[in-house]
Amino acid sequence: MNKRIITISREFGSGGHSIGKAVAERLGIGFYDQALIEKIAAETGFSEEFIKEASEYSNAKNRFLFNIVVNRSLNDRNEPTPADTIFFAQSKVISELAEKESCVIVGRCSDYILRDRKDCLNVFICSDTEDRARRILKRYGNTDKPIQKRIEDKDTRRRIYYSHYTDRPWGIAQNYDLCLNSGSLGEEVCVNTIVSMFKSSYDISR
Amino acid sequence: MNKRIITISREFGSGGHSIGKAVAERLGIGFYDQALIEKIAAETGFSEEFIKEASEYSNAKNRFLFNIVVNRSLNDRNEPTPADTIFFAQSKVISELAEKESCVIVGRCSDYILRDRKDCLNVFICSDTEDRARRILKRYGNTDKPIQKRIEDKDTRRRIYYSHYTDRPWGIAQNYDLCLNSGSLGEEVCVNTIVSMFKSSYDISR
Repeated sequence: MNKRIITISREFGSGGHSIGKAVAERLGIGFYDQALIEKIAAETGFSEEFIKEASEYSNAKNRFLFNIVVNRSLNDRNEPTPADTIFFAQSKVISELAEKESCVIVGRCSDYILRDRKDCLNVFICSDTEDRARRILKRYGNTDKPIQKRIEDKDTRRRIYYSHYTDRPWGIAQNYDLCLNSGSLGEEVCVNTIVSMFKSSYDISR
Repeated sequence: MNKRIITISREFGSGGHSIGKAVAERLGIGFYDQALIEKIAAETGFSEEFIKEASEYSNAKNRFLFNIVVNRSLNDRNEPTPADTIFFAQSKVISELAEKESCVIVGRCSDYILRDRKDCLNVFICSDTEDRARRILKRYGNTDKPIQKRIEDKDTRRRIYYSHYTDRPWGIAQNYDLCLNSGSLGEEVCVNTIVSMFKSSYDISR
């Protein structure tokens, strides 16, 4: 099956953003990370900052939105939280994007949202703690919180958010087509591997 | 860092054995799966059949062997089980192999046993249940036990064995350099990806 879409899920500090960006540039296709947040903001009316925060730590306690997305029917006994509203909007935005164009989408449970499509290459990028710490400090600098604690907190938030909305564990090889360790392999090998896997399934002369 | 060794961990029925074999053939290097069991049998005096069984379901309740391997000191308050003795022998056999030659090693916690080497490419092969069932039925045929139950039982045994001896969860992307889904990608793409990743790090003209 030809691949048209690449979804990239990633650990904080693993370089998933820059790997995704380089892949999109090499393939000459769209790249959606910040641009996705702008689209979701336009769809929901929430600020971009709020979307970034709420989407990494859902306080929603119910399965309301999951039911909307999966069953396409409203359950009027439950009220959606803002995080649910955002997830619903991002599901819509991501599904429309995938329908419209070949692109790279970073994060936001895009692998799960597009799980019924056969034309997605779902990639997970991870790395060891030392390598992630180096990358985080270089990109965001130091804060009062020790780097190890920042990594653990962010991992916990992403894990909770992902499993809340997808009902499956985060970072398990079985959820993806391809998982790459950017720390041991290096970012360039990761980019090359994704690009050649995508090209081998897809006539790039669109 | 040049890679000399490829370890392949795999889900039952994911095609990890045949992918590993094809990779070794393409690279012209040794392939250790059954041959590893023969070496462990020679080392321990246990039968090959017993080694296969015991090594997928350790009944050992203590951390004796883990202490031997990690601390290099005997703890005489605990007695090793046969599974411990086998694990100890396979650690020795695998470490010696890695020292001696460039090769592909399938299973037997080889990724963990060789974790301190920088010249290993650690690969995990997984697949969806339907694809695994198809492969298992083709290779081993039907039994009285439903195929779904056979897959679950084998996964449970490998998970318990791996986490008992390595103290880390099985099938988590973070443990490997590369994880590939043979069901969605196909075996040939898996072979090509491993071969080119290995070649890109290693001057093959040994």
